[in-house]
Amino acid sequence: MRDKPQILGSRIVARSRLFQVEELDLRFANGTEVSYERLRGAGRGSVLVVPMLDADNLLLVREYAAGVHRYELGFPKGLVEPGESPLEAANREMMEEVGYGSRALEYLTSFTVAPGYLEFSTDVVLARELYEQRCPGDEPETIEVVPWRLSQAAELLMREDFTEARSIAALLLVKEKLNHGG
Amino acid sequence: MRDKPQILGSRIVARSRLFQVEELDLRFANGTEVSYERLRGAGRGSVLVVPMLDADNLLLVREYAAGVHRYELGFPKGLVEPGESPLEAANREMMEEVGYGSRALEYLTSFTVAPGYLEFSTDVVLARELYEQRCPGDEPETIEVVPWRLSQAAELLMREDFTEARSIAALLLVKEKLNHGG
Repeated sequence: MRDKPQILGSRIVARSRLFQVEELDLRFANGTEVSYERLRGAGRGSVLVVPMLDADNLLLVREYAAGVHRYELGFPKGLVEPGESPLEAANREMMEEVGYGSRALEYLTSFTVAPGYLEFSTDVVLARELYEQRCPGDEPETIEVVPWRLSQAAELLMREDFTEARSIAALLLVKEKLNHGG
Repeated sequence: MRDKPQILGSRIVARSRLFQVEELDLRFANGTEVSYERLRGAGRGSVLVVPMLDADNLLLVREYAAGVHRYELGFPKGLVEPGESPLEAANREMMEEVGYGSRALEYLTSFTVAPGYLEFSTDVVLARELYEQRCPGDEPETIEVVPWRLSQAAELLMREDFTEARSIAALLLVKEKLNHGG
């Protein structure tokens, strides 16, 4: 394994309410020096939850996605609040977005989003043994909950509004896990 | 389907060499008004290629990822250059990063990365019938090519340096496609 490039210097070159762009001066093991820009996160992780009503029925949400200016289908997700564990954050996000809590939360894996330029990562949580429990969220409009059958994953993957790589990867991981008796 | 929120105004609130942060003033269908920040892309798409040497052997690359400051395994990817189609970009990126061209490029799907705040999307291309052909790229160091067997996808998914949701989703989509005789 190669040594990581050495960070010779770094500075914030742009800043907004949500984002900080950091410029890194790097020296690679072969001596090449380059500057890269990356986005710094808020220092908090995020979670994505796959809520299963039973062995075949999962819950999706349809939400406005400002980056692409359209409604997108995907799994509930959100930032981990200070003091929360990722599993607690997953349970809260589910209560806020789909109106259920879970008695069987299971950490599956952690995704990076675009590791070349984003610091963010997302823990993926499988939620089973659901019970009805709604908490108020901070969304600008009520979130539409869309039930879907895991056995009809192929149809979901064909939809033009189910495009986010994290939701696609989580769907396929859960499908493999549950079909193999996990 | 709901109407999209109306964009009441927008402005660039931060800018660096690579990134532009745009603030959008939105009015949702229920009358709620909020401001969201999103990152604008360069107006160019990106591609991710799954290069298959034969029915079971695929090629990964190990590259430094500045966002998380470590080396990451994943599929070759890059921006579409002006005048290129996504398939042409996929072929060029393969020649630059793994030293192969392809006589059988197939568009599979398009991923968004984080549609809530990123405009970017990535076309996923399956590349078969490879031939040796290397083109110089613009990477700061030679890229390490890592062959992997599709039949050992489970081991790849367990690795701590194979975390990017786009690569995981592409791996699982190709595995499903090829196991079903696509």
